[in-house]
Amino acid sequence: MSGRALCVLGLGLIGGSLLRAADRAGWRVHGSTVSETDRAAARAAGFQVTDTLDEALAAAADTDALVAVAVPLPAVADVLSAVARKAPRCRLTDVVGVKEPVAEAVRRHTPLARYVGGHPMAGASSGGWASGSVDLFTGAPWVLAADEGTDTEVWAEVAGLVLDIGAQVVPAAAAEHDAAVARVSHLPHVLAAVLASVGADGGPLALAMGAGSFTDGTRVAGSPPELVRAMCEGNRDALLAAVDDALGRLGAARGSLASTGGLAATIRAGHLSRRAFDAVRGKRHADDTDPHPQLDLSAPGALEQLRDIGRAGGRIIALTGTHCTYTP
Amino acid sequence: MSGRALCVLGLGLIGGSLLRAADRAGWRVHGSTVSETDRAAARAAGFQVTDTLDEALAAAADTDALVAVAVPLPAVADVLSAVARKAPRCRLTDVVGVKEPVAEAVRRHTPLARYVGGHPMAGASSGGWASGSVDLFTGAPWVLAADEGTDTEVWAEVAGLVLDIGAQVVPAAAAEHDAAVARVSHLPHVLAAVLASVGADGGPLALAMGAGSFTDGTRVAGSPPELVRAMCEGNRDALLAAVDDALGRLGAARGSLASTGGLAATIRAGHLSRRAFDAVRGKRHADDTDPHPQLDLSAPGALEQLRDIGRAGGRIIALTGTHCTYTP
Repeated sequence: MSGRALCVLGLGLIGGSLLRAADRAGWRVHGSTVSETDRAAARAAGFQVTDTLDEALAAAADTDALVAVAVPLPAVADVLSAVARKAPRCRLTDVVGVKEPVAEAVRRHTPLARYVGGHPMAGASSGGWASGSVDLFTGAPWVLAADEGTDTEVWAEVAGLVLDIGAQVVPAAAAEHDAAVARVSHLPHVLAAVLASVGADGGPLALAMGAGSFTDGTRVAGSPPELVRAMCEGNRDALLAAVDDALGRLGAARGSLASTGGLAATIRAGHLSRRAFDAVRGKRHADDTDPHPQLDLSAPGALEQLRDIGRAGGRIIALTGTHCTYTP
Repeated sequence: MSGRALCVLGLGLIGGSLLRAADRAGWRVHGSTVSETDRAAARAAGFQVTDTLDEALAAAADTDALVAVAVPLPAVADVLSAVARKAPRCRLTDVVGVKEPVAEAVRRHTPLARYVGGHPMAGASSGGWASGSVDLFTGAPWVLAADEGTDTEVWAEVAGLVLDIGAQVVPAAAAEHDAAVARVSHLPHVLAAVLASVGADGGPLALAMGAGSFTDGTRVAGSPPELVRAMCEGNRDALLAAVDDALGRLGAARGSLASTGGLAATIRAGHLSRRAFDAVRGKRHADDTDPHPQLDLSAPGALEQLRDIGRAGGRIIALTGTHCTYTP
């Protein structure tokens, strides 16, 4: 895929890191951003950044570039309207943390674009170009939506970009992505906020006593509140289900502690779950040497098979033409 | 205080680290443990470790050593019974994560001991001598109980030990400690367990998508479950209050998300709380050069003043004789 053109719209933490990483991987990159600070910083780093969104999209149309939307959810509709004006038939992806709302916005604003939704599972506690890094996505899971009707040719191109920059492709239906991300990304932000507030309710003595468990448990409460809100509120229905699950489990712990004085079930279940997560992470970082199964994206039923790979915890680790290599 | 004798009972993560750190600081140390693994490892590292608890306490009585109880709460009563048999009038401290239950056990089992309760705010996700480190307590807050009736001479000796090994003394009433630690240490463990379980409920896809926020938010769920249970269950009443606070805040977030779709209040409060915590941590690690106030532990009302220092988020950073230097 090297040598292809990529247009990144939005040059904050994620977009800025994508621009750097794709450039290093040999893509011809350009971008745009509404932030004057980020624009100046990206130009100072030697990148081609247009003054306006429309100019960036005109250049994308001229070079037949893949277009990547890297703005927060509340700004997506405006960017897509510009896409419809300037590059209506482009190949389009995004890096927004929810996938069904973005897919719906694409259908509404720029229905002719050949869209494949994406979501890199990487971040930091601060935003902006300056917080980004060429290595942000190395080894990170990057979900690509594989719903029925997805254009597998564009899917393969976006997967190629993701693999080129060192991330791993996790295929999923948009709705399944949104349900999962509510559990492992949005709920952690809500719980971190709750924990930080309960700690602060204890006054200066409690905060002075905060150590490793409080530091780690509240880390993401340090993220920019407007970004956290946009992310969580944009996935409202799935997040409600995850919060209800957490309320049920926390209420059960409360009941057990109050009645029997014991927390065995809560602590044991949490420990086994964390060990299961460690096993998944270990697999993610393992230097797999076994022969891996392959899947031809152009074969009938390929999208359903992609979703099954993701449901089983698998990921795509290589791509040649339309042939994916995956870990089961 | 260097050159003084210290007897450490229990050589796991905390006790083992205390033994190493006090030794490096020039204390004459010995210890004991019921774990054959830890005993062999400590001896292999060159430390004096007796075969039995009674032998260690007999040696402590002979050398007029400060005795530090470093066993989990469920084992405290048995250790205190041995103290009453072998060294009933010793100067006694402990490192257990709750202070009122230990103080009550001391009153019951070894009422003649001159006891000052302690709790280092440091830990790790695994236990045992092998997980310990001579630097575990460097810069860490170490709470010392300063209730009315506390022997200020022993308090000064224990504070000297804590400062000798590079930690910072946070004075607090036992009950205030227990309420605070429920918020910043025990609740984080309960929430980590809940979050890990909600994530695992999402199946392999959700776990495969887990990134920084889920990794950090569930880290302490990897701790040995029996230690987490002992710690949390031993602080039942205070933990119930903290869990109720968390349930109330999480329920309010749920209600807001369901009714208005917004999480502004939750996220903003969490962010401000985390920033307040960062400010406290920054102060903890600052290279303070201002002149600091002093407190004479032998003066009337010193214990009340100590508690006020802790309530305000202050800490003792130096000690000469009975004169404490503290940061307000």
